[in-house]
Amino acid sequence: MPGTVHINANIHTPLDPGRALAGSEQGRVMTLARGALWHHRGVIKAVGPQEEVLSRAGDDAEIIDCQGRAMIPGLVDPHTHMCFAQTREKEFSERIQGVPYLEILKRGGGILNSVDSVRKASREDLLKTTLEHLDLALAHGSTTVEIKSGYGLDTENELKMLSVIELAGQKASQDIVATFLGAHAIPREKKDRPEEYVDLLIDEMIPKVAEQGIAKFADVFCEKGVFTKEQSKRILLAGKKHGLLPKLHADEVHDLGGGGLAAQLKAISADHLLAVSPESIAEMAKAQVVAILLPATAYSLKKPYAPARTMLEAGLAVALATDCNPGSSYVLSMAFVFGLAVMQMGLSLEEALTAATLNAAYALNLGHKVGSLEPGKQADFCLLAGESPAVIAYRAGINPMAAVYKKGRLAASTQRSL
Amino acid sequence: MPGTVHINANIHTPLDPGRALAGSEQGRVMTLARGALWHHRGVIKAVGPQEEVLSRAGDDAEIIDCQGRAMIPGLVDPHTHMCFAQTREKEFSERIQGVPYLEILKRGGGILNSVDSVRKASREDLLKTTLEHLDLALAHGSTTVEIKSGYGLDTENELKMLSVIELAGQKASQDIVATFLGAHAIPREKKDRPEEYVDLLIDEMIPKVAEQGIAKFADVFCEKGVFTKEQSKRILLAGKKHGLLPKLHADEVHDLGGGGLAAQLKAISADHLLAVSPESIAEMAKAQVVAILLPATAYSLKKPYAPARTMLEAGLAVALATDCNPGSSYVLSMAFVFGLAVMQMGLSLEEALTAATLNAAYALNLGHKVGSLEPGKQADFCLLAGESPAVIAYRAGINPMAAVYKKGRLAASTQRSL
Ligand SMILES: [Zn+2]
Ligand SMILES: [Zn+2]
Repeated sequence: MPGTVHINANIHTPLDPGRALAGSEQGRVMTLARGALWHHRGVIKAVGPQEEVLSRAGDDAEIIDCQGRAMIPGLVDPHTHMCFAQTREKEFSERIQGVPYLEILKRGGGILNSVDSVRKASREDLLKTTLEHLDLALAHGSTTVEIKSGYGLDTENELKMLSVIELAGQKASQDIVATFLGAHAIPREKKDRPEEYVDLLIDEMIPKVAEQGIAKFADVFCEKGVFTKEQSKRILLAGKKHGLLPKLHADEVHDLGGGGLAAQLKAISADHLLAVSPESIAEMAKAQVVAILLPATAYSLKKPYAPARTMLEAGLAVALATDCNPGSSYVLSMAFVFGLAVMQMGLSLEEALTAATLNAAYALNLGHKVGSLEPGKQADFCLLAGESPAVIAYRAGINPMAAVYKKGRLAASTQRSL
Repeated sequence: MPGTVHINANIHTPLDPGRALAGSEQGRVMTLARGALWHHRGVIKAVGPQEEVLSRAGDDAEIIDCQGRAMIPGLVDPHTHMCFAQTREKEFSERIQGVPYLEILKRGGGILNSVDSVRKASREDLLKTTLEHLDLALAHGSTTVEIKSGYGLDTENELKMLSVIELAGQKASQDIVATFLGAHAIPREKKDRPEEYVDLLIDEMIPKVAEQGIAKFADVFCEKGVFTKEQSKRILLAGKKHGLLPKLHADEVHDLGGGGLAAQLKAISADHLLAVSPESIAEMAKAQVVAILLPATAYSLKKPYAPARTMLEAGLAVALATDCNPGSSYVLSMAFVFGLAVMQMGLSLEEALTAATLNAAYALNLGHKVGSLEPGKQADFCLLAGESPAVIAYRAGINPMAAVYKKGRLAASTQRSL
């Protein structure tokens, strides 16, 4: 079987130098008018000018006409909490009427509400909701998705979440990456003894999570009232010792030097960064920590966006993610996030494309496999309802995907496309 | 035939006092948990508590379970330019790279590009694109849509556009309202003789449009470099004389006193209003001119939003619209616009709901027929993928509609809904 050639595509892809594209490199994207992509058994064999690719593929290859649509790599969503049991729609209404996020946390709402419902939920129910979320994410272009635990906050329920995430990865079309986020909040039962919870994380949960073998990363919500910088460091070092690579929810509300800590620990990413200091940015750039920005969360919380341009000017590699969660950003569409990055954060179309594909892939240690359209990588790609990635921002409010392919197979085709 | 009862709905609707809800009234919305809506032959027979409505409808009525979903009136989009021939995706890319909108106009791009392609387009092609747009708008909740001419800019092509809009109204599920916007721009051939074009509008185009009998409204783009306040007044008065009710693109880029002119002419609406003065706001409130706000355009042009809260405090009635057009806002989703109004302009959920339904209906003189869920009105309603209208903003980036009904018939059901 000689595979399939998608012809007549306007191809837009970053080119992979073996790491995330940082600073001024991030805007370098290859574009090919009348390009073609040849794939076989789920892997890309060639990308290039149509005639050249067709002659290499030979006469027996199946040919699909992309009709001039833009083709981009499948989007990679490197930061989500989409494994949860119940939405928090009412809390959202209250919040946009003016109740502050940290106040909602203090009232025992927020994350702890989700913890209550996840602890009660059966694996089946959790899996069902997670798969529904993945299905919507796929329809909006996400072919690789990270999912964090963090609504269990005890050993049993964190392991339960991770096993559900693993199951979701087996059932869904996407590649799923699991992250252990036991350090998402202090659970109710440890409210007055946070150090005990940190000890539990280090002495019991992390070893058992490592033994379970599902999570690739360990993550901590480093923030006032949640985990201190010192606690975060202890937890992430313990994770590292057990083979869990560090990630960090850093400097979202207050600058606790989280970005600097991520650099010091050679974390794979530091995420949020709305309040990050110039010093931390410089340290992250030096340590090649990817900055995962979550503009849908800023949008939903009505906060200023992370300083994306400052980061790029400082030589950082920027990635984008939805942060999908029932509290601060119930957003499943990387296309919407791409739009916010371009329209609200000042990223160029090329920078945003790299951020939502190659850099997001490197923020999950999957740069060798996905994130760009190049021979040897998985044939994960999106066809857009337009001639260039601009259409994702241009047609705000609708799903700009005409079709989404995972490992060469049509995974989602939107109901209506122009 | 006793009709159909939709039971187990969380009903949210403004109540119609016979005019648009203005100022502090705009946030008054009726909510009914476990409510029901009974309709027959496309018209609402009753809305109320489930048991009460069921007993009135009798045993033979068909029963549909809404499963606790939110039910709202079908959305009304009272300002669009969705009848056009070609997108302007490349121009959008240039614009977000920093070329200013008025500069694009000066280069002969912008509206005049769309005029070129509409003049060349066949009725069939124009109709096809318009219907595709209406189909997407419907899927996102719009059951009533206004469409303006204004890419013809000569008698023949303006009449062509209006006849295509009429045809679209016959073929689409929605109610369509046509507006004559011959005064959208000065056509290329009259570039140096704008007064001649104004005379043509008044002496030839308006009488012929009135004779054609399709357009209900006449509209003018009153702006520096387009039509002056004096020209706008002359054109709208001529329209009025021929039975075309006045609307106005007012104070979008510069404050030319457009809002005040709309008040003086007792226009049915003044639209855009990003640069409107407090004086004009006061005059509009006194004259009961509806302010149609177009936040997707501000979003797309990266401009500050219209001062919605100031308007409400001054007692104005505010409506929302997409402004769907290929240049400044290729947005078809009233749900997206609702989200922007709540998240970016500071409207409450209730104010935004009234703005996107009842007030938008009154901005089209259709308040007697659509815009709220009350006996005697058309059975146009949306079921949401959540328990309240908050879900429209909460689930940003996806289509929050679970199902859209027009005159009691299921008109659109989204591919995936949670
Ligand atoms: Zn997070
Ligand atoms: Zn307009």
